[in-house]
Amino acid sequence: MIGHPGFRVEPWCLRETGLDLDVLAQSESVFALANGHLGWRGNLDEGEPHGLPGCYLNGVHESRPLPYAEVGYGYPEAGDTVINVTNGKLLRLLVDDEPFDVRYGTLRGHERVLDFRAGTLTRTAEWTSPAGRTVRVRSTRLVSLTQRAIAAVRYEVEALDGPARVVLQSELVANEELPAAEADPRAAAVLKAPLRPERHTADGARVLLAHRTANTGLLVVAGMDHVVGERAAPDQPAGPDHPLDASSGVATGTESRPDLGRFTVTTLLAPGERLVLTKYVGYGWSAARSLPGVAAQVEAALVAAGSTGWAGLLAEQRAYLDAFWDRADVEVHGDDEIQQAVRFALFHLLQAGARGEGRALAAKGLTGPGYDGHAFWDTEMFVLPVLDYAVPRAARQALQWRRDTLAVAEERAALLGLRGAVFPWRTIGGRECSAYWPAGTAAFHLNAGIAAAVLRYRDVTGDDEFAGGAGLDLLVATARMWRSLGCFDAGGRFRIDGVTGPDEYSAVADNNVYTNLMAGQNLRAAADGATDHPARAAELGVDAAEIEDWRRAAGAMTIPFDEALGVHPQSEGFTAHEVFDFAAFSTRRYPLLLHVPYFDLYRKQVVKQADLVLAMQLFPDEFTAAQKAANFAYYERLTVRDSSLSACTQAVLAAETGHLDLAYDYLGEAALMDLDDLEHNTRDGLHMASLAGSWTALVAGFGGLRQTGATPCFSPRLPAALTRLAFTVSLGERRLRVDVRPDAATYTLRAGESLTIRHNGEPHDLRAGEPRTLPVVLPPAAPAPGQPAGRAPARRTAGGVR
Amino acid sequence: MIGHPGFRVEPWCLRETGLDLDVLAQSESVFALANGHLGWRGNLDEGEPHGLPGCYLNGVHESRPLPYAEVGYGYPEAGDTVINVTNGKLLRLLVDDEPFDVRYGTLRGHERVLDFRAGTLTRTAEWTSPAGRTVRVRSTRLVSLTQRAIAAVRYEVEALDGPARVVLQSELVANEELPAAEADPRAAAVLKAPLRPERHTADGARVLLAHRTANTGLLVVAGMDHVVGERAAPDQPAGPDHPLDASSGVATGTESRPDLGRFTVTTLLAPGERLVLTKYVGYGWSAARSLPGVAAQVEAALVAAGSTGWAGLLAEQRAYLDAFWDRADVEVHGDDEIQQAVRFALFHLLQAGARGEGRALAAKGLTGPGYDGHAFWDTEMFVLPVLDYAVPRAARQALQWRRDTLAVAEERAALLGLRGAVFPWRTIGGRECSAYWPAGTAAFHLNAGIAAAVLRYRDVTGDDEFAGGAGLDLLVATARMWRSLGCFDAGGRFRIDGVTGPDEYSAVADNNVYTNLMAGQNLRAAADGATDHPARAAELGVDAAEIEDWRRAAGAMTIPFDEALGVHPQSEGFTAHEVFDFAAFSTRRYPLLLHVPYFDLYRKQVVKQADLVLAMQLFPDEFTAAQKAANFAYYERLTVRDSSLSACTQAVLAAETGHLDLAYDYLGEAALMDLDDLEHNTRDGLHMASLAGSWTALVAGFGGLRQTGATPCFSPRLPAALTRLAFTVSLGERRLRVDVRPDAATYTLRAGESLTIRHNGEPHDLRAGEPRTLPVVLPPAAPAPGQPAGRAPARRTAGGVR
Repeated sequence: MIGHPGFRVEPWCLRETGLDLDVLAQSESVFALANGHLGWRGNLDEGEPHGLPGCYLNGVHESRPLPYAEVGYGYPEAGDTVINVTNGKLLRLLVDDEPFDVRYGTLRGHERVLDFRAGTLTRTAEWTSPAGRTVRVRSTRLVSLTQRAIAAVRYEVEALDGPARVVLQSELVANEELPAAEADPRAAAVLKAPLRPERHTADGARVLLAHRTANTGLLVVAGMDHVVGERAAPDQPAGPDHPLDASSGVATGTESRPDLGRFTVTTLLAPGERLVLTKYVGYGWSAARSLPGVAAQVEAALVAAGSTGWAGLLAEQRAYLDAFWDRADVEVHGDDEIQQAVRFALFHLLQAGARGEGRALAAKGLTGPGYDGHAFWDTEMFVLPVLDYAVPRAARQALQWRRDTLAVAEERAALLGLRGAVFPWRTIGGRECSAYWPAGTAAFHLNAGIAAAVLRYRDVTGDDEFAGGAGLDLLVATARMWRSLGCFDAGGRFRIDGVTGPDEYSAVADNNVYTNLMAGQNLRAAADGATDHPARAAELGVDAAEIEDWRRAAGAMTIPFDEALGVHPQSEGFTAHEVFDFAAFSTRRYPLLLHVPYFDLYRKQVVKQADLVLAMQLFPDEFTAAQKAANFAYYERLTVRDSSLSACTQAVLAAETGHLDLAYDYLGEAALMDLDDLEHNTRDGLHMASLAGSWTALVAGFGGLRQTGATPCFSPRLPAALTRLAFTVSLGERRLRVDVRPDAATYTLRAGESLTIRHNGEPHDLRAGEPRTLPVVLPPAAPAPGQPAGRAPARRTAGGVR
Repeated sequence: MIGHPGFRVEPWCLRETGLDLDVLAQSESVFALANGHLGWRGNLDEGEPHGLPGCYLNGVHESRPLPYAEVGYGYPEAGDTVINVTNGKLLRLLVDDEPFDVRYGTLRGHERVLDFRAGTLTRTAEWTSPAGRTVRVRSTRLVSLTQRAIAAVRYEVEALDGPARVVLQSELVANEELPAAEADPRAAAVLKAPLRPERHTADGARVLLAHRTANTGLLVVAGMDHVVGERAAPDQPAGPDHPLDASSGVATGTESRPDLGRFTVTTLLAPGERLVLTKYVGYGWSAARSLPGVAAQVEAALVAAGSTGWAGLLAEQRAYLDAFWDRADVEVHGDDEIQQAVRFALFHLLQAGARGEGRALAAKGLTGPGYDGHAFWDTEMFVLPVLDYAVPRAARQALQWRRDTLAVAEERAALLGLRGAVFPWRTIGGRECSAYWPAGTAAFHLNAGIAAAVLRYRDVTGDDEFAGGAGLDLLVATARMWRSLGCFDAGGRFRIDGVTGPDEYSAVADNNVYTNLMAGQNLRAAADGATDHPARAAELGVDAAEIEDWRRAAGAMTIPFDEALGVHPQSEGFTAHEVFDFAAFSTRRYPLLLHVPYFDLYRKQVVKQADLVLAMQLFPDEFTAAQKAANFAYYERLTVRDSSLSACTQAVLAAETGHLDLAYDYLGEAALMDLDDLEHNTRDGLHMASLAGSWTALVAGFGGLRQTGATPCFSPRLPAALTRLAFTVSLGERRLRVDVRPDAATYTLRAGESLTIRHNGEPHDLRAGEPRTLPVVLPPAAPAPGQPAGRAPARRTAGGVR
């Protein structure tokens, strides 16, 4: 794990048993806590050392100008960048005047545990100060899934080998100094001091800091409140919260400055005595509301959290997660590392989406500033397919955010000379923030991805209310865009020229198969939705002629096929291009985009990430089995996976085309992207889409799940290393458990009305409490496809790399 | 002319009879003087008012960082920008304490004349000061074609209506304040105070200022020296130069500061008396030599110029131009405006290239800061084809500059993963300065353009010494690039994918016909050149196998053809794209690039500038007559001419395909691009390529000149409006005069050995002094092709627009 022997493989937590400062930044990402609204990176309580400090509020961003040496019409002039908001995590400790800093003195033990069921990050450290005094520190941190404005920390310090004078400073710090941004453009731009102070107050154990962002004018209020626990006796657990007065030997003080709030506790601990502090942190922000209003909201949240109490918050968190795991757990037998990884993934996906009400679900969630905090197409195409089955409310929220930004997308379409809406390639607030149009504006497929997500959410959850409301708005606006973007050719075929598909090593090509299939689906979905919801459609100005026009375009969609090679070209002409000379490249020169100019990548057959292969996953009925096999083998040898959005898709198609061990290898890559920092940028935050991909590789890959209507279809099959795969998917009120073993799969409808599924293409009716066991049919063995030189996935054995 | 009635149509000069400050900046460009080494914009002597002050030294530039919001591998990090060097033009006049400024007082008369035979800009102004004193000012300015470091001004002021105390300040000013750059990205970036003072000296009437550029470290020395003429009696011409001492009533003074040199003359003029001052200005610059060395060089140039004297400089200039016009004049009968325009064009082309020894010939020559002072592909493909016949030494110099930058181009190729050399899309010093690769790096055709220029220069001039030396180096380096850029497909055809042709409204397409034909010619030329010059070839490491490989690639070059439409697609797939909806655009929304995003232009059938049509001009034998007619008509309706590099080519093909009146319209557009400021950016400098295009439209269009080997071929034919077209072309030592009348053309070899020409395809031998008159054969009439809505060229009648 993260190349560090201190990480342990355990089924329900991520445990680090030592501290390696070389991977500190990565550990801060994997140990991040969030609830979709508020995110705290897993920085050490005392703030230093740090890799990258980070506290984020979903939607709070600053704007910065986008420079161009040669400007073009329609280029966005400014971009959104996530900012590090007021840090409420800080708890600085002085022991006999020596600051607790793991870089000095002697760290005798250090353990951190991210508990997927408790929803907490706990830390235990035993440290001897340079002056020779030893203390034990225990902290437990949570970002509440039930009280979205609230995070909390329980901090204990215990004197071990003699009396110790301890001073604990609990802080709020705004405008923390951040490390300089790396040259890698994928890392976020660091904005220095983005918060302008507006007000600071200190009252008892409570401090509030109010700031406003300079360009975007967003008001951000952070508050903290504290409860000092008793000086617990040795070997006794800390008791219930209650404040102590000074007479008990504990002195406290509070102060506030524009960028600093501080609550100080000091006492003299006898050996074996502990000082316990509970810190509640509340956040609020608004683009519209007043400072008194937002401040009051934060104080109310603090009062509510204090009233719930530390034990109450822990209990709520546990209950929330118990319900989640009951709905969404995946059990993997035969590979403990994958078992841990998929739960790690589901936990972080929940953290990213659970309480994102009205805001985007960013590519890095709220775990780091990578990609400037932007949301991309991977939300709809990689993350939501998991949330649909696991946290459907989060999926709906993410789509509602798209609907909320529709007006901005309509303006963008008008600027580009198109009808309907053009959603941004990357954004926080809704406007286009991509400064490189061949891999931004030209990637129109993201619009069809939003439509696909609406369709899929409806199919999986049965939520017709959304589908016929906000969902229909999205379907119609995107369908109108496609109709105006494409054209009928002389032969009556509908073409979409000059666009960029998912593969970012090709750009601005004609009739990208993925794009055209997605656009066709989008047009049909809008036609169907408008037919099903005529009143809303009429409000949107949709008439019968427009519906018919959409169907005609969808029905005439151009899907190029290379008869000579017997494969689908990713885009028209793709298979005629020179194959990239992979042999000339050492693996050290990947990702190629850092070593090869775009022009050379675009003109050759080299694939960054699944494109045609993703189309085969999403449109299983548009390709014959023979085409799938031929296409998969063809693209496999061209795909370098310089994107985290590829291994999971390759796993799914590898499994479908009978390459189960290869699928297993790709599962490993997808599942360990962040835990093993395979792309060397986990420091900037976790890859939500790749985390989702570990679920997809298992459930869609080895479970064979496909769903293009109300009926989930399975074709389960396990690689040799796995002895069992069991997972639960939610289908609205229904809970369906699928338990796959090498020879048979058992389907159990745990809750909800009876359901039809397909198993290997055959329909079966399920009733609650009546499990059905059906035989696994392994696909015929096929010759192993090749990969680009040096880019075959690491061969995986159960629990590790061969 | 420039929308101003004050401009006169005269055959041998450009005369402006009034001063309109609204077109001052444009007039500064058209009245610019230059010699290829040094350029002075036609700013008023007194400096103010000005549109855009400008003094340029070819090659003197500063470097500036190129910003990217999203950087990519291989993007250039810095760009070159031409800078305004020390201004030596300034002559400020005070009349009784009132500064002579045309904006104040009363301007009773103002005339400027650019004389194409004298090579001078003369100015006469009669002005009454706000205080009521009237003076006449006469100035004559030249930039010497014979003494490349030297410019000179003769300035006379005469009191007309009473005694006047006049003070004349002759200045050198460095780091002049420039107007802010416009938002139009095509205008140059303004660099504030680019010159760092190094030394300033004043001695008698001589002042020197030495500066150095900050980033590029170029030393720039400007010096001036003066001769004060006698107080000439009324109505007598000024006498020979001789200095006057103070006793004659004239007081002088000299001073210097870091950014200012000044020589002051003051006297009291009786009515009818004149003060005459002759100012010699010398420039020198170097990247390597010392300040004393360069300063001495400037002083030497000043001494030489002073020794030549004003009358001597005028005589040298006249003699130089007489020889030029004898070699290169074009007579147009029936359209005085075109007559004037083509001589204006030839004069400015001479000024741009005459003395450019070792430096680039920039797109704007030395007439303004447009395009940052960069040279582009148009030098080789539009300007040199004229200079080959008119100023062959300048053509050779421009190619030698390419050879001198070969090492930089080889480094660029290596960076891009290619063999040989990749020359920059835009540059001053030789490095790539284009920050937008789809219309920069991807426009590889420019490399073949350099090879074509080598080939053409050799064919026209017979200069085998250059062709087998520096020329061969260029041919081999570019051929190697093409061989590594392209590939053989499965069917054995040679493909070149993902490149941008001349049409900048398409980009990154496969098998652009122009590019592929040019690349094939490049490969063949390298093979032929290496075969003809085996020793040099061996030094370059060329062996028989490589030669054979080049020939094989050239022979298998892919040239797509659309059988259904019967036309060549500009690039593969082009004709399948949607045709741009021209009808939706008003003419006010041209150029399209300011109103339509690139992605939309690239994906549709819309052509910025001749691309396939240019290929038909350059490769007359690669297309049948029927194909030429069909292709011309097809592309005519798609071409919006948002570039100055289009009308001349369209004129040539319109003439060839029988649309003589349309060709005449395009001739008008090409010839008047700058004189009528058709693209609204003449203020930033003249379009050298379009100026060349006026010659091309006449000589290649109505003269029908094509030359792909040693034999010039003509197919003369006149539009109805022209009664006669006569031109001289130089072919090495030969002078061939072609005199075309409606029914017959007369070919006269005026000097040199006997020559074979072709007339309408048939060979004819010419001997000096034996004119041959041959019949004109008009092409069959063809139906008029259409143009995009609102983009038909202005219909031209003799001498103006219908």
